[in-house]
Amino acid sequence: MPAANLHDTIRAVAFAGQSLRLLDQRRLPFEEIYLECRSAQDVATAIRDLAVRGAPAIGIAAAWGVVLEAQRLEAAGNAITSAALDPVLQHLNAARPTAVNLAWALARMRGVLGRATGSAALAALAAEAQSIQDEDLAANRRMGELGAALFGAGSGVLTHCNTGSLATAGFGTALGVIRAAYQNGKIAQVYAGETRPWQQGARLTMWELMRDHIPARLVADSAAAHLMKTGAVQWVVVGADRIAANGDTANKIGTYQLAISARHHGVKFMVVAPSSTVDMATPDGEHIEIELRNPAELFGIGGQRTVVEGADAWNPVFDVTPADLIDALVTERGVIERPDAAKMRAAFTAHERA
Amino acid sequence: MPAANLHDTIRAVAFAGQSLRLLDQRRLPFEEIYLECRSAQDVATAIRDLAVRGAPAIGIAAAWGVVLEAQRLEAAGNAITSAALDPVLQHLNAARPTAVNLAWALARMRGVLGRATGSAALAALAAEAQSIQDEDLAANRRMGELGAALFGAGSGVLTHCNTGSLATAGFGTALGVIRAAYQNGKIAQVYAGETRPWQQGARLTMWELMRDHIPARLVADSAAAHLMKTGAVQWVVVGADRIAANGDTANKIGTYQLAISARHHGVKFMVVAPSSTVDMATPDGEHIEIELRNPAELFGIGGQRTVVEGADAWNPVFDVTPADLIDALVTERGVIERPDAAKMRAAFTAHERA
Repeated sequence: MPAANLHDTIRAVAFAGQSLRLLDQRRLPFEEIYLECRSAQDVATAIRDLAVRGAPAIGIAAAWGVVLEAQRLEAAGNAITSAALDPVLQHLNAARPTAVNLAWALARMRGVLGRATGSAALAALAAEAQSIQDEDLAANRRMGELGAALFGAGSGVLTHCNTGSLATAGFGTALGVIRAAYQNGKIAQVYAGETRPWQQGARLTMWELMRDHIPARLVADSAAAHLMKTGAVQWVVVGADRIAANGDTANKIGTYQLAISARHHGVKFMVVAPSSTVDMATPDGEHIEIELRNPAELFGIGGQRTVVEGADAWNPVFDVTPADLIDALVTERGVIERPDAAKMRAAFTAHERA
Repeated sequence: MPAANLHDTIRAVAFAGQSLRLLDQRRLPFEEIYLECRSAQDVATAIRDLAVRGAPAIGIAAAWGVVLEAQRLEAAGNAITSAALDPVLQHLNAARPTAVNLAWALARMRGVLGRATGSAALAALAAEAQSIQDEDLAANRRMGELGAALFGAGSGVLTHCNTGSLATAGFGTALGVIRAAYQNGKIAQVYAGETRPWQQGARLTMWELMRDHIPARLVADSAAAHLMKTGAVQWVVVGADRIAANGDTANKIGTYQLAISARHHGVKFMVVAPSSTVDMATPDGEHIEIELRNPAELFGIGGQRTVVEGADAWNPVFDVTPADLIDALVTERGVIERPDAAKMRAAFTAHERA
């Protein structure tokens, strides 16, 4: 899909007929190299090795991986059946077992096989993969307009991690709101927190915003409260990894701290995520398990070690922001201000993530 | 001065009769190399190039630099006079113009020259340098006992930056309180924030605590609020670069954010600094200028660049924590709980920093 304008030029996942092209996020921001995945195996490797990251982008890539395998079966004169595709579906699903969208996208592809068989199967699979991709982009554009409408003119905005075109079919979730607001002339300055330990803000969000001519300034994660005190930002806008039934939101480590500082300064706090991120089966944040990762991730940046050998570290990847610190929750279905269990119930039904 | 025990083994600044030995902090934590400074010029270079850092440590090193120059004058048969030493005093003072203790220590050395002349001058200068060093260590031990007395048994403590033996004559300020509390059996676990962008927590505090057998765990600066939410810490303990007349405290960037999160969670917040850090001539935090440093400091760690060329960054080095977020201010003179202008006036007189 061609990019819409100067401020929306990046597409990290693109099907090219016989291959899937992935912008290799491990090489950013210094090299823009596209991987050419010619098989489902190539796609699984790219997901596992983090060449493609961001839950929506991973799901889309995996769906196209299934299409590549169906093409291979057809070229070899084999039938495209659920049984024939099952090993590849399982292999793709195992590439990043914790990413919710991966399993969700593969379940959709599997569902196609129950409806279309024989010569129609390949076209149906390709159409489903395209739908997953198009729906994600459309949801992001919708969230962008909904979120941007909440901003006043000349706003300063702080974001965290990378939630942009790189992490989705395009446009982005939280970064999509920022992109739409900038297009609408509402944003004076974007601040990107560097997002230790993986530096997604420093590495990816800064690259993405600069590439799309949106004024971006990097800040240390620890400088956010001081930045708010200066009056430079009116909104903090972040994505989400899982949203519980009462609105409590799990997101990249550091998000909770931003929400506390935002409330302290009267800065507004917005969460932007597709409705597939809402998990009505999880009652609240206390029931969201926080993944602890290898302490070694804190022992340096890139290849540069900074911490003495033998050191211990505590490295939670996510934290939970309680609903009462969230001023606006934006999904493609609309905006929920000050989310709570009753408002969430009204907007999302319990069986949607079954 | 010999170290007191297993938990207090590090001395970064040591006069060796004809030279000043400085533990080169640029090489830590991977190499423990001592620079042998044989002249005031060597000392000035070590200060300017950050081989020695931490305001008290810099002041002490500079004082010994003056002694080295006085030795050189005497060896050459020249008189040790204020005029003869003035170029060296000025050179040392210019090595880090923003460090308060540097000017303060050199003013003390200059004062000696007004009282002692001729053959007595060298001994008087050496005695003054030793006093500056001994007084700093004694103040740190006193603050350690005062601060540690506020802890309950089995406390978890979070600290920021490096305020330890490396930054002082020994023992440390905030890290001195932690050291004393651990010696008194009151600390179960210390958490060290990595302290972007210079990584003093990751590089120096982790090394110092591990070296002195105090249980230390590194955390990302952005994980602090989540850590507090788990109930793992009861105190945040930090140093200070300047304390205003109402108790507002400037310290390393990120301190303010920790104070906000601490208050949000009911975690106590302690500032530890010698009384020379109190600036009664500055009415409040609004009057403390915050140094902005080169954006490039945020573009990577060590030699590892992580941000795209041409990027912009906002890089304040300090922030101000308002007095009303501080539960205890500890100096060698005592503890002020919930500092305010009246309590500060009672404890410190306005002319002390004249």
